[in-house]
Amino acid sequence: MDAEIIAVGSELLTPERLDTNSLWLTAQLNELGIEVVAKMVVGDDRARLAAAVRAVWERSPLLVVTGGLGPTEDDVTREAVAQALGRQLVFHPEILAVIEERFHRAGRVMAGINRRQAYLIEGAEALPNRVGTAPGQWIREADRAVLLLPGPPGELKPMFSESALPRLRAIAPPLVIRTLSFRVAGIAESDLDDRISPVYKRYAGVATTVLAAPGDIQIHLRARCEDEARAEALVGEIGRQIQTILGDRIYSNSDPMEVVIGKLLAARSATLAVAESCTGGLLAQRITSVPGSSAYFLGGLLVYHDAMKTGLAGVSPDLVREHGAVSEAVARALAEGTRARTSATYALAVTGVAGPSGGTDSAPVGTVFIGLAGPEGVVVRRFRFLGDRERVRAFAAQTAMDMLRRRLLGLPEVPGVAPA
Amino acid sequence: MDAEIIAVGSELLTPERLDTNSLWLTAQLNELGIEVVAKMVVGDDRARLAAAVRAVWERSPLLVVTGGLGPTEDDVTREAVAQALGRQLVFHPEILAVIEERFHRAGRVMAGINRRQAYLIEGAEALPNRVGTAPGQWIREADRAVLLLPGPPGELKPMFSESALPRLRAIAPPLVIRTLSFRVAGIAESDLDDRISPVYKRYAGVATTVLAAPGDIQIHLRARCEDEARAEALVGEIGRQIQTILGDRIYSNSDPMEVVIGKLLAARSATLAVAESCTGGLLAQRITSVPGSSAYFLGGLLVYHDAMKTGLAGVSPDLVREHGAVSEAVARALAEGTRARTSATYALAVTGVAGPSGGTDSAPVGTVFIGLAGPEGVVVRRFRFLGDRERVRAFAAQTAMDMLRRRLLGLPEVPGVAPA
Repeated sequence: MDAEIIAVGSELLTPERLDTNSLWLTAQLNELGIEVVAKMVVGDDRARLAAAVRAVWERSPLLVVTGGLGPTEDDVTREAVAQALGRQLVFHPEILAVIEERFHRAGRVMAGINRRQAYLIEGAEALPNRVGTAPGQWIREADRAVLLLPGPPGELKPMFSESALPRLRAIAPPLVIRTLSFRVAGIAESDLDDRISPVYKRYAGVATTVLAAPGDIQIHLRARCEDEARAEALVGEIGRQIQTILGDRIYSNSDPMEVVIGKLLAARSATLAVAESCTGGLLAQRITSVPGSSAYFLGGLLVYHDAMKTGLAGVSPDLVREHGAVSEAVARALAEGTRARTSATYALAVTGVAGPSGGTDSAPVGTVFIGLAGPEGVVVRRFRFLGDRERVRAFAAQTAMDMLRRRLLGLPEVPGVAPA
Repeated sequence: MDAEIIAVGSELLTPERLDTNSLWLTAQLNELGIEVVAKMVVGDDRARLAAAVRAVWERSPLLVVTGGLGPTEDDVTREAVAQALGRQLVFHPEILAVIEERFHRAGRVMAGINRRQAYLIEGAEALPNRVGTAPGQWIREADRAVLLLPGPPGELKPMFSESALPRLRAIAPPLVIRTLSFRVAGIAESDLDDRISPVYKRYAGVATTVLAAPGDIQIHLRARCEDEARAEALVGEIGRQIQTILGDRIYSNSDPMEVVIGKLLAARSATLAVAESCTGGLLAQRITSVPGSSAYFLGGLLVYHDAMKTGLAGVSPDLVREHGAVSEAVARALAEGTRARTSATYALAVTGVAGPSGGTDSAPVGTVFIGLAGPEGVVVRRFRFLGDRERVRAFAAQTAMDMLRRRLLGLPEVPGVAPA
């Protein structure tokens, strides 16, 4: 089954913004065996959007429209789709009641313009929005369907998963797509591709994608067949070879690192605390982005300024003076001090130079020391991450968590790099 | 002048890849006063691409197609555009000679398939490719034009700048674009739009976009006129009215909140520390994402677990027992304790229920207390943020920084909400 996606929003036609919702949606549709054959971005322009919707309606069995369901005059999706399909907009008092109740719960009064969000296209089913005010809409006619979703990813994703997915599953023909993914830490993208490309290039029927983020490479395998067993056999065959090559550098199939270490800590009834200098909260923020992380994450110390390293974490001022704040000695003292002060089972400490300034001869920009203290003792590794401030920080946070993962699994320590 | 962009390539329809060429192209076109009114991605499918090109040809004066000019069977742009325009493909021996020469210089023999790249659409001008083998093409007819560019950014960009730009400049009417932006905190999107839409709706010649992130709304004004002075006067006129309406809720023209508070702190030689519970590091992470933030940000305490609130920040266990960790009293004690322990000029403390679980009758999910301690004393505000965990945390971090901004500027405190 073919689908097209239209993202609505003039901001998506500026030089600064891209429609990223379509990536997530494509992955979801592909899972159902639905192929995305074209994507479009249209501004907040009713006539233009109506024309685009009309054209897709005539040529493709499924259209997904994202955005333009907000309460303002800019939000033209409802009107444009109604016009394209030659249908009326119908006011639904029961939807208005839900929106009003939402505002009421927040102790606010609904603005009059939110009334616009209580209109459905004639014949459409409303898809509830748990997160925001705009309901989605689902329109089905003979052999075609249109799905309207809100633009904010935080609203779009739960609505798609909870309301759109079952409806799409009912209409998608049984073409099967089987995917297998791996997430990998502690290896450079080019190095990884050199090792695994001889494997995946032998399989023309399987699409292989390698996506690199700092310290985090994702490998996606995708086979699309009419025969489920064949699709599964194909991805399984490549997957086993990749696992053999990459071994314990594979840290999950899809869970991000913060989820992986969370599960490992929880399973061991262990707790974690952190001390962050150059990452400035990023490490803790990632760990606490996981619902339920309070079961194993205690908290820790933000030791951005050197006075905090001594004052909060109890690192000796002499040690900082002698070795510098970005040093193995200070990373060790931070990890030990944080573990002692919080009584956590493990403590991770990160101190480094994220840049763009602040580099020295002995610790150039990108130098990061990561200390891990636990019942078995303390290890410190030195790293040199390449890239801008954001990238260095992302690498540092990911690598710190990977050090903990390896410790929890009893794997050999990552090597780090020699001093510059 | 309006333009549309079509990016060609099946890889751009996967869940992993986006058409990023269009961002660069949009910036270039906007500089010429050319507006991008729609963008599309089409796979390597000749019929589908031909239909898309035909539709744009009929409705927009300029079409830019990127990609699909390579030598393989997958590269269908030449054939599809020729078909859409009802023109022939014409073999040009002089182009073939250039391609052969290119291979020759590299010490290689040209593969037979590269011959395909020596075909031009009837009536097209070839645009030389300094970097690769595929020439671009420029087709001009009466009041419309089509520009074909290679997909690789390293080939597309020099070709655009050297060959396409002068041709576009010759056909683009001398239109100028002037923009003005505002960033706004402490107001809901619908409330904001209710207030400012009566203003911007009066100006048909100015495109106004309102973009909402948690606690952070961006307003973009964009005037497009033949006369530069007129464009500037237009955005200035609307801008002044919006400023009058929104007043001190406007926190910058484009700087994010963490940059705004950084500048305010630095200008006052003041320092900041934080204590984070439900935001778990997000607030500090945003503050330290700014290069040079070490000039004013000291660090602070991650008091995710209640034991950290008492152990690290010195909050009395009785206080936590009596009022609960998510309470005005604990937010106050956290802010005061953090300020005392770090000797910072200001301390921000955040304690709340980010969800999805952990809500209580007195503090349902989304309840967040933010405390701000400074030389002038301590204030605590209670908020109720709507949405999922990520959204509640983002709202809390943004609102905490806005409380500090208002304090530093001597503005009235934000009201917060009454207890549930």
